Amino acid sequence: MKLLSVNAGSSTLKFRMYEMPEEKVICKGAFDRIGIEGSNFSIKYDDKKIEENVELKDHNDAVKILLEQLIKNGIVNSLDEIEAVGHRVVHGGSKYASSVLINDEVIKEIEDLSALAPLHNPAALKGIRAFIDNVPKAKMVACFDTAFHQTMEKDAYLYPVPYKWYEEYGIRKYGFHGMSHKFISEKFNEMLGKKANLIIAHIGSGASLSAVKEGKCIDTTMGFTPNAGVMMGTRSGDIDYSMIGYLLKKGLSYEEIENQLNKESGLLGIIGKSDLRDIDELFANKDELAVLGVNMYTSRIAEYIAKYFIKLEGKVDAICFTAGVGENDDIIRSEVIKKLAFLGIVLDEELNKETLIRKGKEGLISSSKSNYPVYVFGTDEELMIARDTFEIVCKD
Amino acid sequence: MKLLSVNAGSSTLKFRMYEMPEEKVICKGAFDRIGIEGSNFSIKYDDKKIEENVELKDHNDAVKILLEQLIKNGIVNSLDEIEAVGHRVVHGGSKYASSVLINDEVIKEIEDLSALAPLHNPAALKGIRAFIDNVPKAKMVACFDTAFHQTMEKDAYLYPVPYKWYEEYGIRKYGFHGMSHKFISEKFNEMLGKKANLIIAHIGSGASLSAVKEGKCIDTTMGFTPNAGVMMGTRSGDIDYSMIGYLLKKGLSYEEIENQLNKESGLLGIIGKSDLRDIDELFANKDELAVLGVNMYTSRIAEYIAKYFIKLEGKVDAICFTAGVGENDDIIRSEVIKKLAFLGIVLDEELNKETLIRKGKEGLISSSKSNYPVYVFGTDEELMIARDTFEIVCKD
Repeated sequence: MKLLSVNAGSSTLKFRMYEMPEEKVICKGAFDRIGIEGSNFSIKYDDKKIEENVELKDHNDAVKILLEQLIKNGIVNSLDEIEAVGHRVVHGGSKYASSVLINDEVIKEIEDLSALAPLHNPAALKGIRAFIDNVPKAKMVACFDTAFHQTMEKDAYLYPVPYKWYEEYGIRKYGFHGMSHKFISEKFNEMLGKKANLIIAHIGSGASLSAVKEGKCIDTTMGFTPNAGVMMGTRSGDIDYSMIGYLLKKGLSYEEIENQLNKESGLLGIIGKSDLRDIDELFANKDELAVLGVNMYTSRIAEYIAKYFIKLEGKVDAICFTAGVGENDDIIRSEVIKKLAFLGIVLDEELNKETLIRKGKEGLISSSKSNYPVYVFGTDEELMIARDTFEIVCKD
Repeated sequence: MKLLSVNAGSSTLKFRMYEMPEEKVICKGAFDRIGIEGSNFSIKYDDKKIEENVELKDHNDAVKILLEQLIKNGIVNSLDEIEAVGHRVVHGGSKYASSVLINDEVIKEIEDLSALAPLHNPAALKGIRAFIDNVPKAKMVACFDTAFHQTMEKDAYLYPVPYKWYEEYGIRKYGFHGMSHKFISEKFNEMLGKKANLIIAHIGSGASLSAVKEGKCIDTTMGFTPNAGVMMGTRSGDIDYSMIGYLLKKGLSYEEIENQLNKESGLLGIIGKSDLRDIDELFANKDELAVLGVNMYTSRIAEYIAKYFIKLEGKVDAICFTAGVGENDDIIRSEVIKKLAFLGIVLDEELNKETLIRKGKEGLISSSKSNYPVYVFGTDEELMIARDTFEIVCKD
């Protein structure tokens, strides 16, 4: 079965086509600057690459061109070969604890949840509608970033705020990066032959950790929004909210404050840079701000790992780093794990240095003396979407 | 030497008179509803109690009446006997790492720091000025709630926000309840005969924890303001700040939101009650919301204790509960420590039940099997102010 795994942003549409259940990537690509001057697309298949600058008024244009190209290049002989399309949807609210076959009701729900994800859910809907219009025979599946975290108990997902904020406004912890956390969790379940207890550190430019007990998420660091939790590339993560009131009194607008907390904070706020390659170099040269920023960054990750040890009562089968930074930055991993020495967690520093997904090497990075194993695995949200989509379509 | 330990609020003035260095409380009392209709005062000394309803236009009125009463009742024969007055001041900013003799410059600084503590610092200044006016010969000492936490390193006190917010606006973690954390810390230093490594849980209606390394604070849960950190009686503590932007869009004003986060959140927000005596009864009867609220409340305390174990690299001489709830609520203590079982911390539940400051019993509550000792000690901020004041006056 051929299916598409699709991630639609407000002006982008990324896709992969898989042959399932072989999980073979048949082709992949991206449409950029949709609705903006200078729009373009690229598609890779076999060892070929197609790139074109072309006007893309909307997501429908992008999907039309994608399908034309698939036929034109013989990637599929007929659009009927595309049996399903899995769509990444950021917010599934409290409604969706798993991926789901899309029907009118689901579309309505995703629309209703746009208040909670005003940038992301409407974009996902554009993608969904464009594929419904252009490949009407294919089954559509929605895969939510929040779904994996829906197994959290109420005491983990509620905030200590007026209860009516939860009831009336849906203010609670949702968690994000769910397709990634699920991918890693299932990888360990298979590897260990059981529903594993894990601490997963998805550290990219956005970052979130999850505590997983017997295969189910019991806590995660992102919250009501993806701005909470650990310090990130440009996002602050957890702060004392009262600084907002103080800054409002100083004359900043709420929009300015929120924008700066999102785009000018985190590593960028402290060090003036957010790319870990630059930062690691400064850190190695003992640049004062880089040392400060990296300490802050890695402390917060280590502290959440400690919190999750408490939640899991010490029954932790593995700690796993994943996503851009987690997969490729041995310095950050080393600085995090150094801070966990009292739990008897120790890296094999040689192994840690060698283990870089960009060099094709993943796996164990802890020393044989470590009380708990530490791993690095590459995440694959697109494949997770493809797997969920395949499973749902086969069941349907 | 006789001295006064004073805590002035916007409409209150609490005091104790000490004979130092004996630390004997000669008398104590409070002036209430200063500047408000129905103002009154009470003074206790020996086994006597004076209570009167009297007009108190301002703090100066209160201090005048206090001094009259001291003379009138023969508590002092002359105002010259009052050699010093120690004043509790909430905010000492980054400027004061210890208590300090008050001069014009200090008054100016406390004034300047009012932006950071708009309710508290001006009130403290009213108290300071009233005593300067009425007992001009006495030495005045300012004791700051923030001072004990000034030993935090930059990576602990900075937020991952734009660095210029720290430089231009003084946005950083300050920490509060410092006189209490210092009192407990010094108690352990004396008891253990060394500068101790501690995790201190000051749990009252407001609550904060501190990590103390060799007698010095290295981290604390309250932050830029006392609204951060653990869940409290009516304050939320840590939340995802982005819910504020969401609620603003829903039509709430910032003031409403902040007010609700301060006064209608925490235990009150979840359970509808904030008095632990009511909550413990509901909890014992397995009331659903009480169980939820107590779990949230104690989880957050336990999680910060776990964080501080990381910070202290496991080198923890003792965990100590103090303040209203910490001193008198065996259920809360038990629920917190249960969550730390994986660290090998175990209470002696009988000892825990018996150990209530209100019954005059303090000390060790952990089992002999516990990897780390857990204590309950009564805090005494007034005495800490008296000690600091005495020390400074003697040195001067």
